[in-house]
Amino acid sequence: MINEESKSQLKQVVGEERFFDDPEEILSFSYDAFILTSEPDVVIYPITTEEVSGIMKIADRENIPVTCRGSGTNISAASLPVKKGIALCFTKMNRVIEVNTQDRYVIVEPGLINGELQKVLAQEGFFYPPDPGSINVSTIGGNIAQNAGGPRCLKYGVTSDYVLAMEVVLVSGKIVRVGSRNVKDVTGYKLSSLFCGSEGTLGIVTEATLRVVSIAESHRTILATYDDLEDTANTVADIIGSGILPAAMELMDKTVINVVADASGMSLPREAAGMLLIEIDGVEEAVEKEMNRIAEKARDNGARDVTVAHTQKESDDLWAARRLAYGAFARLAPNCIVEDVTVPVSNVPKMIKATREIADRYKLHLGILAHAGDGNMHPLIAHDPNDKDELKRIEQAAKEIFETGVSLGGTLSGEHGIGLAKAEFLPLVMNQDTLDLMADIKKTLDPKGILNPGKFV
Amino acid sequence: MINEESKSQLKQVVGEERFFDDPEEILSFSYDAFILTSEPDVVIYPITTEEVSGIMKIADRENIPVTCRGSGTNISAASLPVKKGIALCFTKMNRVIEVNTQDRYVIVEPGLINGELQKVLAQEGFFYPPDPGSINVSTIGGNIAQNAGGPRCLKYGVTSDYVLAMEVVLVSGKIVRVGSRNVKDVTGYKLSSLFCGSEGTLGIVTEATLRVVSIAESHRTILATYDDLEDTANTVADIIGSGILPAAMELMDKTVINVVADASGMSLPREAAGMLLIEIDGVEEAVEKEMNRIAEKARDNGARDVTVAHTQKESDDLWAARRLAYGAFARLAPNCIVEDVTVPVSNVPKMIKATREIADRYKLHLGILAHAGDGNMHPLIAHDPNDKDELKRIEQAAKEIFETGVSLGGTLSGEHGIGLAKAEFLPLVMNQDTLDLMADIKKTLDPKGILNPGKFV
Repeated sequence: MINEESKSQLKQVVGEERFFDDPEEILSFSYDAFILTSEPDVVIYPITTEEVSGIMKIADRENIPVTCRGSGTNISAASLPVKKGIALCFTKMNRVIEVNTQDRYVIVEPGLINGELQKVLAQEGFFYPPDPGSINVSTIGGNIAQNAGGPRCLKYGVTSDYVLAMEVVLVSGKIVRVGSRNVKDVTGYKLSSLFCGSEGTLGIVTEATLRVVSIAESHRTILATYDDLEDTANTVADIIGSGILPAAMELMDKTVINVVADASGMSLPREAAGMLLIEIDGVEEAVEKEMNRIAEKARDNGARDVTVAHTQKESDDLWAARRLAYGAFARLAPNCIVEDVTVPVSNVPKMIKATREIADRYKLHLGILAHAGDGNMHPLIAHDPNDKDELKRIEQAAKEIFETGVSLGGTLSGEHGIGLAKAEFLPLVMNQDTLDLMADIKKTLDPKGILNPGKFV
Repeated sequence: MINEESKSQLKQVVGEERFFDDPEEILSFSYDAFILTSEPDVVIYPITTEEVSGIMKIADRENIPVTCRGSGTNISAASLPVKKGIALCFTKMNRVIEVNTQDRYVIVEPGLINGELQKVLAQEGFFYPPDPGSINVSTIGGNIAQNAGGPRCLKYGVTSDYVLAMEVVLVSGKIVRVGSRNVKDVTGYKLSSLFCGSEGTLGIVTEATLRVVSIAESHRTILATYDDLEDTANTVADIIGSGILPAAMELMDKTVINVVADASGMSLPREAAGMLLIEIDGVEEAVEKEMNRIAEKARDNGARDVTVAHTQKESDDLWAARRLAYGAFARLAPNCIVEDVTVPVSNVPKMIKATREIADRYKLHLGILAHAGDGNMHPLIAHDPNDKDELKRIEQAAKEIFETGVSLGGTLSGEHGIGLAKAEFLPLVMNQDTLDLMADIKKTLDPKGILNPGKFV
């Protein structure tokens, strides 16, 4: 509960028009893309760093929980205000402050949609590599909080590889700046990496300087289809193990192929057991050469068909179809869970086999989608949340999937984060001393525990 | 001072043969590559994590300073035991534990020499990108502590981009493991990046899992020479600004060219005002194409000569000559300081001009060497440390160089770190609240301040 006096002070900071405590607004901030719900007490839309600082001074003094949020696409409940308090929504603080392609960086506000940044950069022949599935909806601030990945992170790396500097409002309302515009910078602790992926539990990013990359002169999309899912997985391990690094390498099993074919209307190989969608980029001649090597590896591993997109449109359509997978799968049942286990790529075949076996044993409607080149598996599980027995089976299966992934040298989450959804499983990947160290750091930056409370730390 | 009882306990942890408190050993650990000296009380060579843990338990209980060290090549005094205590030397804890090229990682102990790791990897067709000037001498542990860079970090990134996981002994002797073998891993705070570059002030890395990269099929070295240093610098800004990303792009001014020519015996263009040494790697056809583009840019910017190394040996010789620069320059006078300011690449021309002007004004024997492609400038200053007036002038000039770099959007250090040498200048790049935040984190991980005390935090 926030008392009236504090509400009035918060209103003074941002003005009446960006402060809400009416039931409609509250309700629309009571969920993200995870299955739980929890209402905040108030919703505030800041547009300046000073406003965020002013809000934090009041929250700190009054012990009010603060949960930051962009577009709320998070699927680990990281943006859910489970302890109520303030939902701090950054969607109105969304400017592009500077585009500097000569020095290869941009400066942006946290509420900027990733896809909007891409449009601005594309005009200059540049792009920002992290491309989560939610690219056209999710914000840079949310991407930073979750250390977002995406298909092309296989070649280009994840969000933390691109954050050069940040302005951060601490829980006290103090404003710090970490990092610089320089790719090489070893002046003190690398705090930008600490905030990146901290899921809003350590501080509030109010500005980010991001490294950008020039768009390659040539792109090619390859589609390889298989009669055997194991062959599909073996191709992935073989290509990566041989030192070839495509921009992206996505795997879909039969279930996902068919769901995507239905949703997109594209003629995809419905009867195939597995499919790889591979993107290569670079200098034209290099792309041509790598394409041939990849096609050869695919055939060596039993692909029955390897085709190359002939036009940019055909390629764009294939990637657009891939992006439909989650949404399309989610329409099969009232709800859909996307898991996010990552394993070393040589264990992708074993992980896929184990996942299928677990799904069959628990009788789940599970499809396998994966950023396979970096071992990042996204099993999709369509289900009815009102079916308690099914939920119970999903819970058991997820636990087995996590344990299997970890036993194969993998980890709990490749890009979706821990949030609330996976907090209980953290001991699978770190010992108590490591958990204590995270808790100590949390306590140092947020002594009262008001920043996104109730989550993994 | 360490009391006899503690000494005896420390000896029990590692055995008599890896514990030293005799004057000869003490003396040889009283300096690194910076100009100051300070003797430790004892020198210990651990070979297991458990030994490091055992040592830290004693040090923590008895409040004994612990300064870690590899080969002692640090030039910011980061490995100098300024508060005495234990010099913990890792050169005997230097195994390669696992090489896994299929999953693109290696697991190593901290005392392994970077160059030794490169040899092992080269046999498999792989390499570990960070290549500091000290590559054949410095250890992976030291590289991690300083977040080392090097020429090819222009294309490939610095040490923190390659540390996937670490085992770290905390000040209490507790052992934590952070990160995993997976490139994509968002399970809690990214602690590996916090330890990386912390200069031994937060914990002791006892094992590291490093990402490795396959060696490109083709490499080419280009040499461009200029009659005007400004044209040299403009070429750098032009190439990078146009989106081309060579593996390395090194700049030398006339002073450095001549020193390197003398030391290497190679026929370098002694009368040139500036020289660029550029490495391109990738698929053969792409390298050929980029080489032509780079040569064109160089000529457009006034290069009087652009040549390509014809053989691998010629290329190797050029890079070996480049590696001689620091050592050769250091032989010009009793001592040599290497500065390490980094600026956004578009400001490289301005920074070089300003540096030359400052050097002339203070009558310094200064040569300019730079990892120019990422704006990382290394002015070399040969001097006599017994000449107090000269030292005073160097101090003033260095301050002006730092201030100029920062005013051009740059930072204090690109790869050498802060240590003791630059601690006083940190307020140039961060406000008091940011400094306080670093101090808070230090206090959380090292409450008594015994890990590498007396340094930047």
